[in-house]
Amino acid sequence: MPSAPIVDLADGNKMPQVGLGLWKVENATCADTVYNAIKEGYRLFDGACDYGNEVEAGQGVARAIKEGIVKREDLFIISKLWNSFHDQDQVEPICKKQLADWGVDYFDLYYIHFPVSLEYVSPETRYPPGWFYDGDKEVRLGKASLESTWKAMEQLKKNGLAKSIGISNYNGALLMDLFTYAEILPATLQIEHHPYLVQQSLLDLCAQKGIKVVGYSSFGPQSFLDCNMKVAEDFQLLFHHDTITKIADKHNKTAAQVLLRWATQRGISVIPKSTTKSRLLENLDVCSFDLTEDDIKEISSLDRNFRFNNPLNYGIPVYNFA
Amino acid sequence: MPSAPIVDLADGNKMPQVGLGLWKVENATCADTVYNAIKEGYRLFDGACDYGNEVEAGQGVARAIKEGIVKREDLFIISKLWNSFHDQDQVEPICKKQLADWGVDYFDLYYIHFPVSLEYVSPETRYPPGWFYDGDKEVRLGKASLESTWKAMEQLKKNGLAKSIGISNYNGALLMDLFTYAEILPATLQIEHHPYLVQQSLLDLCAQKGIKVVGYSSFGPQSFLDCNMKVAEDFQLLFHHDTITKIADKHNKTAAQVLLRWATQRGISVIPKSTTKSRLLENLDVCSFDLTEDDIKEISSLDRNFRFNNPLNYGIPVYNFA
Repeated sequence: MPSAPIVDLADGNKMPQVGLGLWKVENATCADTVYNAIKEGYRLFDGACDYGNEVEAGQGVARAIKEGIVKREDLFIISKLWNSFHDQDQVEPICKKQLADWGVDYFDLYYIHFPVSLEYVSPETRYPPGWFYDGDKEVRLGKASLESTWKAMEQLKKNGLAKSIGISNYNGALLMDLFTYAEILPATLQIEHHPYLVQQSLLDLCAQKGIKVVGYSSFGPQSFLDCNMKVAEDFQLLFHHDTITKIADKHNKTAAQVLLRWATQRGISVIPKSTTKSRLLENLDVCSFDLTEDDIKEISSLDRNFRFNNPLNYGIPVYNFA
Repeated sequence: MPSAPIVDLADGNKMPQVGLGLWKVENATCADTVYNAIKEGYRLFDGACDYGNEVEAGQGVARAIKEGIVKREDLFIISKLWNSFHDQDQVEPICKKQLADWGVDYFDLYYIHFPVSLEYVSPETRYPPGWFYDGDKEVRLGKASLESTWKAMEQLKKNGLAKSIGISNYNGALLMDLFTYAEILPATLQIEHHPYLVQQSLLDLCAQKGIKVVGYSSFGPQSFLDCNMKVAEDFQLLFHHDTITKIADKHNKTAAQVLLRWATQRGISVIPKSTTKSRLLENLDVCSFDLTEDDIKEISSLDRNFRFNNPLNYGIPVYNFA
């Protein structure tokens, strides 16, 4: 059974370099997807309040544990703080609700999902709350500074609800500011990362500070076509890009494997989604071959510095990334 | 004598839309440059600690006032807080020193120059201190959060040392965070802005919040060739770009005027540098003709989302812009 290499986080915890991302995994299939992935060798699951499937993901975990396939401590369970819960006094309550949804008593890693504070929406009103205060019309920005939210995240680590804490969708300027006020540095930064968005200087900054980087949407525009994102149609699919297919053929691997290996050889962890067994195995086995330095350079040269996962690209009137 | 249109700032102050930028104006000629510019009709001067010429700029102002060409209140004098003075208790002292250098008792507008806190260097040690703690080797990041620095900036406005306060080189994510903690919003955001860096969504965000945008390096790579910046050589000079020269010929204007008009018609203020009288006049007179909507769109389509003024491009190991 394939298994992922282990990444040493600066806080002493250990994280598998490859895991399963739960974004867009449907509720109806999520429990089975997680359960089957565990059987195939997956140990890391990247969830979030916003994905709306934490209860089901937890059911998959519970079944695998009940059947003795894994123990809780073998797994690396990740979740994320949604924008509506940035107020300092909302962070712990919502983290506890999310833990209850998963049916576990700690997260291995808990992220600030976006560097955007939205007005609080109670879980009784609507859960997950999404970007719009009233469900579909108005975005209401909140008043929680990132510093105040980070202080609450540090508290989660101190009281053991999260073994590690991280940030997601931060740019370099936000990180620089965080360095001035953080008592505990983030263990990881999760960002969109693919050959159209290489972000070398952000990776360099993280390396300097011992922050490990996790890349999402490793396949580029692919993920966003499912969301009917117009701008994604303007980009050549990386699975069919000459550079990628040429290198894949050379190594007798799939385009997906090449894209994941390009990321992992750059020191980045990946969380590709799949619901088919063959792809799950293929993705997990990605560290079993090596690209050449020239392959890596050639793929990196596709950089367009283009971010698909920008609220504006979904028609959400929130400007948050430079 | 030409004069610039006036921009109404949200705090009630009024700012000329065109002014003279003092970056790279040499000490030996700075007093004359400022004095002559005032005679040609300039009223706004965009200075900074880091430009190292505030004493000389002030001498030019003093001479013009002494000769009765203008009064202090006719001028709009701008300066900027350097990175080494972000600590809350250093902001007012350094602002007062800069006021003394200029020989005035208030700034019309005072900016945070970069969203980067560096370790304090006393003015007795070296002034201006620049990016490197020891002059040329080591960059030492400071511990002042942007929130704490902004609080000190708000105090400058409250006590009248600065009539308006602003920020420079912030991206949208930093602005979103500032909105959570600012008691007084910035009157202006000064950013690099030219057809290779159009930044439409950042402009939209500022428009939503009533923050006026000032663009620097309106001519794009031109400014950075003087700094021996390698990457600037990879870009076609905008003065010779077919799109710009074609539109300039059509309007019987220079390429420089077209670039400035493109910015000002987008609602942006500009601060081009010049030391020759004919260009000073040409730049100031830029609002006397109009580009068509199609001209503006065509110029905006040159966007490459490329920022020249990034410390890394100068070999300064500071990552601050996304």
